[in-house]
Amino acid sequence: MADSETPRVAFQGERGAYSEMAARRFFGDRIALCPCESFDLVFKRVESGRVDSGVIPIENSLAGSIHQNYDLLLKHRLHIVGELNVRVVHNLIANPGATLASIRTIFSHPQALMQCQNTTAKLRKVKIEPAYDTAGSVKRIKEERLLDAAAIASDLAAKIYGMKILKRQVQDNPENFTRFLVLKKKTASPAHANKTSIVFSIKNVPGALFRSLSVFALRDIDLYKIESRPLHGKPWEYFFYVDFAGSLNDRNSRNAVAQLREIASFMKILGSYPRDATRR
Amino acid sequence: MADSETPRVAFQGERGAYSEMAARRFFGDRIALCPCESFDLVFKRVESGRVDSGVIPIENSLAGSIHQNYDLLLKHRLHIVGELNVRVVHNLIANPGATLASIRTIFSHPQALMQCQNTTAKLRKVKIEPAYDTAGSVKRIKEERLLDAAAIASDLAAKIYGMKILKRQVQDNPENFTRFLVLKKKTASPAHANKTSIVFSIKNVPGALFRSLSVFALRDIDLYKIESRPLHGKPWEYFFYVDFAGSLNDRNSRNAVAQLREIASFMKILGSYPRDATRR
Repeated sequence: MADSETPRVAFQGERGAYSEMAARRFFGDRIALCPCESFDLVFKRVESGRVDSGVIPIENSLAGSIHQNYDLLLKHRLHIVGELNVRVVHNLIANPGATLASIRTIFSHPQALMQCQNTTAKLRKVKIEPAYDTAGSVKRIKEERLLDAAAIASDLAAKIYGMKILKRQVQDNPENFTRFLVLKKKTASPAHANKTSIVFSIKNVPGALFRSLSVFALRDIDLYKIESRPLHGKPWEYFFYVDFAGSLNDRNSRNAVAQLREIASFMKILGSYPRDATRR
Repeated sequence: MADSETPRVAFQGERGAYSEMAARRFFGDRIALCPCESFDLVFKRVESGRVDSGVIPIENSLAGSIHQNYDLLLKHRLHIVGELNVRVVHNLIANPGATLASIRTIFSHPQALMQCQNTTAKLRKVKIEPAYDTAGSVKRIKEERLLDAAAIASDLAAKIYGMKILKRQVQDNPENFTRFLVLKKKTASPAHANKTSIVFSIKNVPGALFRSLSVFALRDIDLYKIESRPLHGKPWEYFFYVDFAGSLNDRNSRNAVAQLREIASFMKILGSYPRDATRR
């Protein structure tokens, strides 16, 4: 299937993971998929050039930031070239021969299990078993031909493994979105970029964070998000990750970032990219 | 042991947990301990009056914030009355009959296992097994009399369960601290309070976060930390948790908070308490 034109895309998880759904939505269905065991491996595959792009979740609207990926953005030299919001619709999936009444165990990622507690609590005599990932749980109950087990995962996972959806939309909160980032090695910002992500640390003096944020406020630049992560070796000091409105193709954003460089003790640009303002 | 004078203190984990070390350092050794299965239960035990205080970890200097506890501070009506920094010293613990050469499995909390990778990687043919908590792993290898297994936990856990420390200080990074909070139902701020924690949300308009932080900057009030958590039902909006220098016993801090109330769409005071600036 893959020729030199086909984008090669790495993501964490088994085939059918929510990250694969995000990759397909961004690149279309003509892609060469590279499922990886860990987020770290996704970054490494892109960095080494084995794949063209990586797709990683960065934030869920209920569970919050995926902090490991914030740390990896700092550690690796990749650029954010796109983002997309994907509505998370969990399904209860089983082997074709299974029925809702036959289920005794439900496997899934702990996050997914937590987001479906209302549904699973109604099923009597069912044991909840945390697993390594959502799609991987579907794969497991298929391979082990378990008729008394179900998995919580995407409908894409059910389709890929030829499994039956026992119950659709089993998540408690319908306003469940995950925001994904698309990463590449190349540095040029996309032409329609209107959002920029940076990470910086500040000198440990009073008012330093306020002065850092003033470089945006003084230029009427809106902030979408601020996230802090620990600075290793300096207990209770932080890296700040800021997403702001604007692209480094614009003079106004470049000026803000230049002023921030004067204030910050460290700064790294993670990328300018088109914002996904939709909720799909 | 427990009489009406003895403080009753709840914490998450088995006896010997790092939270128990924090509780003993704060209250002394004459306390009635109430080990709880979950953080949620710690909050509930304090709220219901079954115990006088709860001790919870809020942040580790390497792994970052314990986000679940930020969420629980918002959900429950408790007050922070103290904090303390505890140096985390992990030890490799086994049954008295075991030797380093006999170990084939190491159990501990995933966080502790991650913080001791340099040591565990040097042990050949050893399987790493994530477990529910650090002290609980010690309890388990004692109860199951496993001679080929070890656990990573505090020296307090080794002492409590009468186990042997095979190797002390097995953590990779010595600058490993956990900050704990002490929670009570009562509202009066301690007399020597010099740090305050609040949580607020802001209207979704440009510059709102900057304006919120200006109430502190304009009064020369230093910020120790800012943490954001998702606002459920409003994807990509946030609660901001801010720790600042000062007590609500002081007029300057009260003025800052009053001005923030004008700007914020929601605000809750979590407590004023004496800051622990030591690293023990």
